[in-house]
Amino acid sequence: MDETHPPSGAQSGDTPLARLLQQDGSSYGAAEVKALVAGILAAADAVVASDWTPLIAPRPSPALRAALHALAEGLAAAPPAPPPDAATRLALLRAELARRGVHGFLVPRADEHQGEYVPKRAQRLAWLTGFTGSAGLAAVLPAAAAIFVDGRYTLQARAEVDASLYVQRHLMEEPAAEWIAATLKPGEILAYDPRLHTLGEVERCRAAAEKAGGSLKPLADNPLDAVWQDQPPAPLGPVLPHELRFAGESAEKKRQTLADRLAADGIDAAVLTAPDSIAWLLNIRGGDVPHTPLPLSFAILGRDGTVDLFIDRRKLMPEVLPHLGNGVRLAPPDAFGAGLRRLGAAGRRVQVDPASAAASVFDALVEAGAAIHRAADPCQLPKACKNSVELEGTRRAHRRDGAALTRFLAWLGVAARSGTLAEIAASDALERFRREGDNFRDLSFPTISGAGSNGAIVHYRASAKTERRLESGTLYLVDSGAQYLDGTTDVTRTVAIGTPSPEMRDRFTRVLKGHIALATCRFPKGTTGSQLDALARRSLWEIGLDYDHGTGHGVGSYLAVHEGPQRIAKAANTQPLLPGMIVSDEPGYYKTGAYGIRIENLVVVTPLAAPGEREVFGFETLTLAPIDRSLVERDLLDAGEIAWLDAYHARVRAEITPLVDPPTAHWLAEATRPLAR
Amino acid sequence: MDETHPPSGAQSGDTPLARLLQQDGSSYGAAEVKALVAGILAAADAVVASDWTPLIAPRPSPALRAALHALAEGLAAAPPAPPPDAATRLALLRAELARRGVHGFLVPRADEHQGEYVPKRAQRLAWLTGFTGSAGLAAVLPAAAAIFVDGRYTLQARAEVDASLYVQRHLMEEPAAEWIAATLKPGEILAYDPRLHTLGEVERCRAAAEKAGGSLKPLADNPLDAVWQDQPPAPLGPVLPHELRFAGESAEKKRQTLADRLAADGIDAAVLTAPDSIAWLLNIRGGDVPHTPLPLSFAILGRDGTVDLFIDRRKLMPEVLPHLGNGVRLAPPDAFGAGLRRLGAAGRRVQVDPASAAASVFDALVEAGAAIHRAADPCQLPKACKNSVELEGTRRAHRRDGAALTRFLAWLGVAARSGTLAEIAASDALERFRREGDNFRDLSFPTISGAGSNGAIVHYRASAKTERRLESGTLYLVDSGAQYLDGTTDVTRTVAIGTPSPEMRDRFTRVLKGHIALATCRFPKGTTGSQLDALARRSLWEIGLDYDHGTGHGVGSYLAVHEGPQRIAKAANTQPLLPGMIVSDEPGYYKTGAYGIRIENLVVVTPLAAPGEREVFGFETLTLAPIDRSLVERDLLDAGEIAWLDAYHARVRAEITPLVDPPTAHWLAEATRPLAR
Repeated sequence: MDETHPPSGAQSGDTPLARLLQQDGSSYGAAEVKALVAGILAAADAVVASDWTPLIAPRPSPALRAALHALAEGLAAAPPAPPPDAATRLALLRAELARRGVHGFLVPRADEHQGEYVPKRAQRLAWLTGFTGSAGLAAVLPAAAAIFVDGRYTLQARAEVDASLYVQRHLMEEPAAEWIAATLKPGEILAYDPRLHTLGEVERCRAAAEKAGGSLKPLADNPLDAVWQDQPPAPLGPVLPHELRFAGESAEKKRQTLADRLAADGIDAAVLTAPDSIAWLLNIRGGDVPHTPLPLSFAILGRDGTVDLFIDRRKLMPEVLPHLGNGVRLAPPDAFGAGLRRLGAAGRRVQVDPASAAASVFDALVEAGAAIHRAADPCQLPKACKNSVELEGTRRAHRRDGAALTRFLAWLGVAARSGTLAEIAASDALERFRREGDNFRDLSFPTISGAGSNGAIVHYRASAKTERRLESGTLYLVDSGAQYLDGTTDVTRTVAIGTPSPEMRDRFTRVLKGHIALATCRFPKGTTGSQLDALARRSLWEIGLDYDHGTGHGVGSYLAVHEGPQRIAKAANTQPLLPGMIVSDEPGYYKTGAYGIRIENLVVVTPLAAPGEREVFGFETLTLAPIDRSLVERDLLDAGEIAWLDAYHARVRAEITPLVDPPTAHWLAEATRPLAR
Repeated sequence: MDETHPPSGAQSGDTPLARLLQQDGSSYGAAEVKALVAGILAAADAVVASDWTPLIAPRPSPALRAALHALAEGLAAAPPAPPPDAATRLALLRAELARRGVHGFLVPRADEHQGEYVPKRAQRLAWLTGFTGSAGLAAVLPAAAAIFVDGRYTLQARAEVDASLYVQRHLMEEPAAEWIAATLKPGEILAYDPRLHTLGEVERCRAAAEKAGGSLKPLADNPLDAVWQDQPPAPLGPVLPHELRFAGESAEKKRQTLADRLAADGIDAAVLTAPDSIAWLLNIRGGDVPHTPLPLSFAILGRDGTVDLFIDRRKLMPEVLPHLGNGVRLAPPDAFGAGLRRLGAAGRRVQVDPASAAASVFDALVEAGAAIHRAADPCQLPKACKNSVELEGTRRAHRRDGAALTRFLAWLGVAARSGTLAEIAASDALERFRREGDNFRDLSFPTISGAGSNGAIVHYRASAKTERRLESGTLYLVDSGAQYLDGTTDVTRTVAIGTPSPEMRDRFTRVLKGHIALATCRFPKGTTGSQLDALARRSLWEIGLDYDHGTGHGVGSYLAVHEGPQRIAKAANTQPLLPGMIVSDEPGYYKTGAYGIRIENLVVVTPLAAPGEREVFGFETLTLAPIDRSLVERDLLDAGEIAWLDAYHARVRAEITPLVDPPTAHWLAEATRPLAR
């Protein structure tokens, strides 16, 4: 027998893998390892390719590493049987509901953490209906079902969801509550999974069900999980410490600061259900969901500064335990409910954020007798205000990111000439340039690479079916970003392919005027993003144009690319902008069926030496990449705007030139020539 | 006996007045007339001088008129004995509280209608404490008392209120609830008059009282009224129809439109407690409070379009009854509670505005069994959106008002040269010019006439003690307005006396840039005032300056000079600006101890012929008066701003010149010369 082939009894305990595990001192058997690797495969794609093997043995030998990667490849290459068709999936769910004695069920896109990205296991809405957008809700009743999506996803949902099974409604304009009130029959019970909904959603749906003469009922476990064969397991993206040289403040100090505030407010504990808050607080990062390096977990912060962290221990890399230290007690995720009930039983006063905590959290606390103090997640504001180490990190990350984007734009100038370059090839090239940068870990969101009319679709995602070529006389919009250990980036550039039309130049220049108005504004302490939003829109408003998205969102530090509490948008937001907050400045204009324009830099709120009477803040621009001069209509800009663009380009040239090859540097010198005559 | 002299038995029923009343067919006896005239004297000063005699007899003879005016003069000339000193007043109240078995009492500045102006009878806070500002609250406990005022009134309260009796606190920063929680003793009862507080206030005070171990208790009648000897009676300002040629829409149509909406929403009735809403709905005007021509009243609008109007019939001028018609049932004000209880007893679904209705309204409805629907006063939004007749009226009123202000400014140019003109003489002159205009009825608020450092006090009111002379090298700020039958005005101009300093010119020009930025902006349907506010502040923010008041308030049509629901301010406001809404555009800058600058025009939201894709609105400027060119630093303005100022001045010249005397016209031509070279 050839020793290079495993014996035929490979399934027994005495496999080569089992032997390697034993040799390297792993505490796991082969079957446990298989489950763990399935968890790795259920995490973010970026972590599958990373070195996760220390999860299994602290110092794995090359042989064990190879065996483990082979195991993962084998599991990944043998995907589960294709799911039944949509009609069967819906019928399976209805049968399960009947078995449980309820008539209907709500299927939101959210997971237990109400985050933007959800792990594969929690993609219940997609499994049931086929709809893969990032926001939505299905309601299933005995004789009817509906899917609710917002304006971004109207067309996508029509393509993905079988209209003979689900009527499609607008999430905000025709809310689910109305459909429920009109469709549920008297006496019928509409069920929901209380871990997946906020209290507000539950209340609205309860009112609707009662209006119809029916009722709303929470279920202890999700009936959809019972019928979803081959549902992926919970993700086990490896958790690593976020080093102090990137975080800038120790987890111990963060815990103590927050705990002191709780104690001062007479609160015993704060429940944390937002994984990015927990990642920030404990200086840990993970890989459970795409593009945001966070470990899914729950936590309870006590007024003494200790934390109960509810997390699967299997995903902690060996160095995490000493990093967390004595102040953090570990418990499995399914002990979270018991942890809440203990707080209640002890009569504790507990702070919970109604905007992000699930209804089940409130239910457990209230039933057990806790006094609830509703307030914003206490990590949100300090997380948003970056410290000087985080800011230095993000400046470095933005220089690397700017170099990658500049190389891409220089490359594009040549590659697009043929007229055959298409959207996916373009974004792949951009990703390659980014991957070469130090500290690169992942993209921070799926790149929006939109040529021509696809650029007008605000949340466009290119597919083989939809992608267009970058053709002369059109605009190409690319909105992209990356996760570096030292910072998160997010940048949009719009590039003319060939010669742009006068209308394109006019619209681009108006968007640029809005971008500059926001980038250059100064404002007194206490000002909110809502107050500044109009500055970015004014020059479009002047000619009856506008854009239907916010102007700026908060950005994390090697964390979520969208974070609160600050926001620059039309909608009222009462959070003042504070020094250290990173926000995007991204006005745009979209002409349906024709082209899209967006100019996005990240900026950080900075205190200014006040010449006057008030404490005044402004923005420092972080993003470094040229803005397409061929789209600027010089006569529409005033002297101050021209000076801003020229100074910005001079800075881009000075900071990026040393980081790029000579041909790119040459291209950059041309791309950043001053407008001023 | 000389017939021209009354007999010595003048107090008997057979007085000349009694005879005159009988002759003219009055239904009142002499004693009743005396009470009615006391009510006239308790109304706005402006109505005392008007012809109110038809209230007493439909067509009074000259003799009766003379007798009635003589009666009024006699009553006015014999004022009540001066009130006891502040310490005695406080002691009287405390004794009355003890008699009623309670320990403390809340004395707000508000009356039953939560309006900005309150009648003499309701000025309880001023009677008790001496504080005459337009917002405040006193809390009286057995061993301590406090007065709460906002930043505008800190100095004034210090001057008016005896600090040995009342500690003074900041209304917002050191709220009454905190003082109550810290000062009330366990077991003590804090009482309040539920007709004078909103539900929110009551809830905050209740929480504070309970935190202290005490309790909060509503009283059926106000203990302060029991100890206030010579408290004025309820005002009886004559009520008149607001003619259709000014109102533009009949009361019947308004009632029906609102009732149809109630019916569509499944609501049986709406409770109206805001007198300006009732005045708008029924097209009536009155004179119960200073400067706002409204009759104090309550109303209940039914889903059938009929109205129960709770008002003192004695104040209805003869033409009001036919004007109101069959759809309006009259009842005395003290029947309002019974009216609410009837709604409750019938199980009605009743709409009430928690922002303006008193706690007693909710108490009465809830106790009687009504279902309460909390929503904004249904008159607010339609009242705010002026119809074309109201807009034509306000344009006419603004031309007359602009002529009066122009005459004043021309006069001022000469009168101020001596250096002896002082603030009160200046504002008296302005009032004289205004009184000469057609349809003038009253000022719309007490004129703010501030010279030099007094101009820096945002809500300054000149008195003999505080007034300053208009001296060379200073600025003079005058904020004033009038009530005309066809419209309400409100305008601020800042004038250089002599030669202004470069700093004054710089600041004035920045305020002007803000004014122009708002006046010229275009914005899509759905935009709120909060979104636009920053446009008016940006050029001050640039050099670290700001102003601590809103940028724009709504203005009524021959009604309140401050009205909602729209507002242009930093604070979040979710009401979109809609065509027909009148708002002020009044940025400012105030240098404490030195000077104040404000430039205020009224503007009206106007739909624009949209050149683009969106429905776009802009502002039409209503106010017509020159802006002091000597304060404009031309180099700080861009070409568009210069063009706006020159076009505005050309329009002022064209519209005002025909309305003024030749010397004023000459002055105006000079004052409106173009800046453009």
